[in-house]
Amino acid sequence: MKKLYEETIKTESIYKGKIIDLELQEVVLPNGSHSKREIVNHPGAVAVICITGENKMVMVRQYRKALKKSIIEIPAGKLDAGEKPEDCAKRELEEETGIIAGILKECDSFYTSPGFANELVYVYEAENLRQGEVHTDEDEFVERMDVTLTEAKKLIRSGEIHDAKTIYAIQYWELKQYNKA
Amino acid sequence: MKKLYEETIKTESIYKGKIIDLELQEVVLPNGSHSKREIVNHPGAVAVICITGENKMVMVRQYRKALKKSIIEIPAGKLDAGEKPEDCAKRELEEETGIIAGILKECDSFYTSPGFANELVYVYEAENLRQGEVHTDEDEFVERMDVTLTEAKKLIRSGEIHDAKTIYAIQYWELKQYNKA
Repeated sequence: MKKLYEETIKTESIYKGKIIDLELQEVVLPNGSHSKREIVNHPGAVAVICITGENKMVMVRQYRKALKKSIIEIPAGKLDAGEKPEDCAKRELEEETGIIAGILKECDSFYTSPGFANELVYVYEAENLRQGEVHTDEDEFVERMDVTLTEAKKLIRSGEIHDAKTIYAIQYWELKQYNKA
Repeated sequence: MKKLYEETIKTESIYKGKIIDLELQEVVLPNGSHSKREIVNHPGAVAVICITGENKMVMVRQYRKALKKSIIEIPAGKLDAGEKPEDCAKRELEEETGIIAGILKECDSFYTSPGFANELVYVYEAENLRQGEVHTDEDEFVERMDVTLTEAKKLIRSGEIHDAKTIYAIQYWELKQYNKA
């Protein structure tokens, strides 16, 4: 295996924000030359696959300022300081959709943008569901919608579902149906 | 449908870098109150699903400073200014693996981190492959490895495959086998 490691020789903090920090690192490359890496530090996040008794996936429509549009995503949110991913998944699902999950099963975790950010998303599947009350954060506005697999695929084609974790969730759902069959 | 739009009333540029920019926007929320949004602007990227004649997926191991580890990903890279995603996919595949694709079929596109970044990844599937020469960027060090679907799933479980686009690609590959059957 080739030597791929990059050693950091200088770190400059550019910004410390509410959700993300930005730092600029000077690194030594495997060939000895120097380069800069722009790195966004993120606390990590969870996303929840939640299939109702009617065999629909629970989604939320939400305006995303970074994209300048609203998109339809699975329930998700960032980790609070010291919060366990499983607790966060339970909390976010309930806050955004009112659904209380008796069981949260970890599916996978993945980095969203390894080229510049350390955001890690833990994906859970919610089971033993009961309906409680929605109570979103004060700066969060979401609209719940439950969709069938066929509808979900149409929403991907129309660009209304357009983010990595939600497309992952839909593929997971489809694969599960094949693996059960 | 609820009103979800957030109007920007002030934009502050925090950083303009080599790959990303960071800006801080003050927005008016649907309920009239104000909030801040931290937004990373990114030029967009491509990723390439490439299955060899031996039914293996072409991957590259690469050190990712943001993650402080090397991971195994499908070939990928960011768009140059004005570059068409398809041309970028062809270029990145050839640079990182030496493979020249006669056909590049668009599979999907997705935002990686809609909560704070506008990075959009276009995924292509490469066909009509022939082997040329590897020629990576001067600050890029990658090691090619071709893996079977079974090996790919093991690498997910071990955390060596750990990013959204690569897990998407593996699900896509598995679904394709079911849909063909």
